Amino acid sequence: MTIEKTMTFIEKLQHAWERSDSLLCVGLDPNWSKIPAHLKEQPEPIFNFCKQIIDATHDLVCAYKPQIAYFSGLEAEGQLQKVMDYTRETYPHIPIILDSKRGDIGSTAAMYAKEAFTRYQADAVTVNPYMGQDSAQPFLDYADKGTVLLCRTSNAGAADIQDLEVQGAPLYEHVASMIANDWNTHNNCCIVVGATWPEQMAKLRSITGDMPFLVPGVGAQGGDVKALVEAGKTSDGKGLIVNSSRAVLYASDGLDFAQAAREVALQTRDLINQYR
Amino acid sequence: MTIEKTMTFIEKLQHAWERSDSLLCVGLDPNWSKIPAHLKEQPEPIFNFCKQIIDATHDLVCAYKPQIAYFSGLEAEGQLQKVMDYTRETYPHIPIILDSKRGDIGSTAAMYAKEAFTRYQADAVTVNPYMGQDSAQPFLDYADKGTVLLCRTSNAGAADIQDLEVQGAPLYEHVASMIANDWNTHNNCCIVVGATWPEQMAKLRSITGDMPFLVPGVGAQGGDVKALVEAGKTSDGKGLIVNSSRAVLYASDGLDFAQAAREVALQTRDLINQYR
Repeated sequence: MTIEKTMTFIEKLQHAWERSDSLLCVGLDPNWSKIPAHLKEQPEPIFNFCKQIIDATHDLVCAYKPQIAYFSGLEAEGQLQKVMDYTRETYPHIPIILDSKRGDIGSTAAMYAKEAFTRYQADAVTVNPYMGQDSAQPFLDYADKGTVLLCRTSNAGAADIQDLEVQGAPLYEHVASMIANDWNTHNNCCIVVGATWPEQMAKLRSITGDMPFLVPGVGAQGGDVKALVEAGKTSDGKGLIVNSSRAVLYASDGLDFAQAAREVALQTRDLINQYR
Repeated sequence: MTIEKTMTFIEKLQHAWERSDSLLCVGLDPNWSKIPAHLKEQPEPIFNFCKQIIDATHDLVCAYKPQIAYFSGLEAEGQLQKVMDYTRETYPHIPIILDSKRGDIGSTAAMYAKEAFTRYQADAVTVNPYMGQDSAQPFLDYADKGTVLLCRTSNAGAADIQDLEVQGAPLYEHVASMIANDWNTHNNCCIVVGATWPEQMAKLRSITGDMPFLVPGVGAQGGDVKALVEAGKTSDGKGLIVNSSRAVLYASDGLDFAQAAREVALQTRDLINQYR
C-alpha cells in the first residue's frame, strides 16, 4: 500500500479502473431525508451511512465522490473528515474526489485547495471554471492531485450558459479546449461531462484526447449507458468515471440498504462493462 | 431593530447605504499569515480579528462580506459562525454577504442555500452562474435573501471565459441579461462586476437597471474609484457595494490594526462619496 501513497491521482485512477474492473464511481450524497431511519438513532449517522455504503461497494468502484454540501448544510464537517479518513486508511487504492465545485481567485482559491487537499486529503476536487485559468491555477499547482473542471453538466439549465455559441461552437467546447491545451500542463485535469448528452461527449473526447471524464447523471436505468460509454470511452475502454449517487445509495431504506446498494453497484458496473 | 429583521436583503442594503452614507463593503478575508501576531496568542484569533475590524468600521459600511474559504481552509467554521452571529446581533442593520461562490444543482444546491441562509443566517450569498438558472433557483427561492451572481470578475483570467464573444457581445453581458430578465423574479439578484473595468460596468448598468453591483478589486488607491463609481452608480448615487478587503484589514499589523482599518475605511468611503 505504500506505493499507492506516492501515486498521482491519475495513476491511482488508472490502477483503480483495472483493479476493480470498473468505471463506476459512487457519489456520497447523504441526503438526510433518505438515510435509513435506524441509522439516525445512532451517533454520527451520516458517517455511518457512508461507511456502510463504502464497505459494501469498495471492490466495485474506481472512485468515491463525497458531495460536501450535504455535510456543510448539516454542520457535519467532522463526519466528512471521518468519511475521508476511513476511506483513505481502509481502501488506500481508491481515489476520492471531493465534489465541492469551488472557484475563486488568488489566495482565496489557495485556501479552497487547502480545504480539499490538506484538510480533507482528497485525491481530486471539482472546480468551476467560470473565473478562468488563474482561478484554477492554485488547484492545478498540486501536480499530484486531480482538478475536475465543470465543462458540460447534466442539468437542464446547463444550456443557459454552457451551450451559448462562440465562434460557431458551443461554449463548453471552448472550455474543454482551453483545459486540454492550456490548463493541463501537469496532466492532472479531468472534465465533467453529463451522461445525458452522448453526442456532446463524443465531440469532447475528440477535443481532449485521453483526459478522464467525470460523468454524472447515470441512474440504474440502462438506456443511456450504452450510448455514453461508447461515446466517451478511450481506446483502451477506460477514460470514464461514471458517477451514480441516488440509485446506489437509496436502493433500499431498510436494514438491508448496504446490501441493496451493492447489488445496484454491481449491476451498474457490469452494465457499463458490456459496452467498454 | 425588530423592523429590520423583517426587511429583505435589498431593503436592508438600501437602508444601510443611507444610514452609513456609504457604498463601502468590508471583505472579511482573515488571511492567517497577515493577522496581527498578538491576536494569535489568544483563543479564537480569526473571530477576534474580524470582531475588532467590525467594531472599528460598523458605522462606515453598507455591508460585510466574510469569505468562507479562509475559515474552511483552517477548519474554523465555528469562528465563522461567531462572526456571523456577532455581526447580526450587534449590528442588525448591516447586511452580511457570505462569499462562498457556490454552484450546483437540485438538492445539492438546496443544501448550499441552507448552509448560507439557515446555518450562517447570511443576508445574501455569492453564487457561480456557470451551471445555469436551475442551479441558482434554490438560492433565488429565498425571496428575502440576496443572490449575488458572478458576472464579470476582476481577475486577469476572467477574460478566458467571461469575455468570449456570443452573438456580437461578450458572454458576461448575456449572463447579465439572463439574470436581469429571467432570474430576478423576486427582485433579489445582484451581480459581481470587477472594479477594474469601468466601461464594462457602464454597459452592465444599462443592461440591469438598478440591480446592485458587488464590486471587488478596489484598493486604497484612488485612481479607479472615480471611474467605477461614475460608471456603475444608479441615478440616485447608490447601486454599488464597493468591496475592499486587504487594504482595510491589513492597514497595520500592529496593536493599532483596528484603528488603522477604520482610517482606511473612512478614507475609502469618503473617496467613493466624492463621485456619487
